[in-house]
Amino acid sequence: MTIRKVAIIGLGLLGGSIGLASKERAADIVTTGYDRDPDTRAAAKRRELVGTVCDSASEAVIDADLVILCVPVGAMESAARDFGDHLPEGAIVSDVGSSKKSVQNALARALSGHTIIPAPPVAGTEQSGPAAGFSTLFADRWCIITPPESADQNAVDALCDFWSRLGSKVEIMDADHHDLVLAVTSHIPHLIAYTIVGTASDLEDVTRSEVIKYSAGGFRDFTRIAASDPVMWRDVFLNNKSAVLEMLGRFTEDLTALQRAIRSGDGEKLHDLFSRTRAIRREVIDQGQDDSKPDFGREH
Amino acid sequence: MTIRKVAIIGLGLLGGSIGLASKERAADIVTTGYDRDPDTRAAAKRRELVGTVCDSASEAVIDADLVILCVPVGAMESAARDFGDHLPEGAIVSDVGSSKKSVQNALARALSGHTIIPAPPVAGTEQSGPAAGFSTLFADRWCIITPPESADQNAVDALCDFWSRLGSKVEIMDADHHDLVLAVTSHIPHLIAYTIVGTASDLEDVTRSEVIKYSAGGFRDFTRIAASDPVMWRDVFLNNKSAVLEMLGRFTEDLTALQRAIRSGDGEKLHDLFSRTRAIRREVIDQGQDDSKPDFGREH
Repeated sequence: MTIRKVAIIGLGLLGGSIGLASKERAADIVTTGYDRDPDTRAAAKRRELVGTVCDSASEAVIDADLVILCVPVGAMESAARDFGDHLPEGAIVSDVGSSKKSVQNALARALSGHTIIPAPPVAGTEQSGPAAGFSTLFADRWCIITPPESADQNAVDALCDFWSRLGSKVEIMDADHHDLVLAVTSHIPHLIAYTIVGTASDLEDVTRSEVIKYSAGGFRDFTRIAASDPVMWRDVFLNNKSAVLEMLGRFTEDLTALQRAIRSGDGEKLHDLFSRTRAIRREVIDQGQDDSKPDFGREH
Repeated sequence: MTIRKVAIIGLGLLGGSIGLASKERAADIVTTGYDRDPDTRAAAKRRELVGTVCDSASEAVIDADLVILCVPVGAMESAARDFGDHLPEGAIVSDVGSSKKSVQNALARALSGHTIIPAPPVAGTEQSGPAAGFSTLFADRWCIITPPESADQNAVDALCDFWSRLGSKVEIMDADHHDLVLAVTSHIPHLIAYTIVGTASDLEDVTRSEVIKYSAGGFRDFTRIAASDPVMWRDVFLNNKSAVLEMLGRFTEDLTALQRAIRSGDGEKLHDLFSRTRAIRREVIDQGQDDSKPDFGREH
């Protein structure tokens, strides 16, 4: 099976980046796109995020070999119903949502009998909307394909091939494990960033102005993640509840242990942990998952 | 009072950057430096971090108008005793440590009768040692001067002037308040980054390899901070215990409230917080405390 036409539903950061990456790296593939928001459709036309911006989802999916849903995970089912009656037989339906089990269930309800293979890329920035996408967002980042057991291998292969062409590395994983892995590498980091930024801005003894001024002490790093799209992240937490709560429990246990070490003056325990975590940073850089320049390469 | 000669004790990231910034922006000031580690002294000579790298602290402080201690806060008292008998009368002793109350006490014990005015810059990177410093580290960052009540105003003014010449903005604050502000903007962010990186690398259900591969989901940001110097940070937590524990209590309360919101499916509460935190990011950027480029300007 060969993917010749891709329909992108939702033209924000991820949808727009898929369109731009396709144009740059897989120019033989025809792309269409749709977004419920007319302003987003207009911006998508101006930026030429896809070959054709359509005025309805059902128009966008005509003749599509692959339809990719790029909307918040809580909006997947409704977005799928928009085009369900017009979906070509044999088309693959995929999505980029960050919680897989709930989305697989939602799409199976909306698109019964169709081929559904989620494929969330592990990539993004704190920005959102049609102005945010860029063609190299997926380069050297992983895309995790989570096919259901019944999935047709040819369809899985075609989807892997598509993401490889966009510059991604591809991995196959089951949906449950995906949700646990992403809870740790993405959802809990976002949750604690949102929390500390909220905590810092609500203090009485330290003003908001002081928090901003002295944010270069470390806090500013957290403000970037905590600037991520509120709707997308609300939906992730509501839809990956059990994995998030499990991982949050582990984090809280470890934080409590460190709190006790600080209270009791146990410098050895602190030093041991702080030395171990340094090695993880080296591995992240060695494996090409972050910039080796100090301070993320920020300009000084 | 005019500062003509500065002695820098400890030639790591901060000490080295002070030396390089002085050379570039205040070339009329003579600089000397010392570090207990002979390898660091040799590296400092090669990089010319200061005008003269001395073989003892007491040699470095000869004729100094200003001595700046740039060692971990737990090592301040001992480093001060190294040169205390040779300190010129009237010289200002300052330090860059991130917990002020404990350091003020330690230096007062070691250098009784001398003028002690701490001045911690809110600047740094995750790297440490004599190779890490650079001349623009302090540009547009704040330096917080925490003079004791008895401090001579001429000495305070001279120190403010010195840090302004290095490119810093300068603020006067009392030591207790400094410790509370930095607990929020620096110490707690580091503690939770160290914690989540430790938690993620100790799981049974998710492998270390998976954590590294999929770190671009947000986790990798935390690995940068968690790669910071282990000895420096151990000492900060042991020496700013009460402010850290107080702020940690606030953070934990807020995290527990979010955990409850996730468990009960309270999407409105999540969305409210996630929208508020976005505004803080904008303020951090508007006030020049971070890069406006998405993803810290990382290369994609």
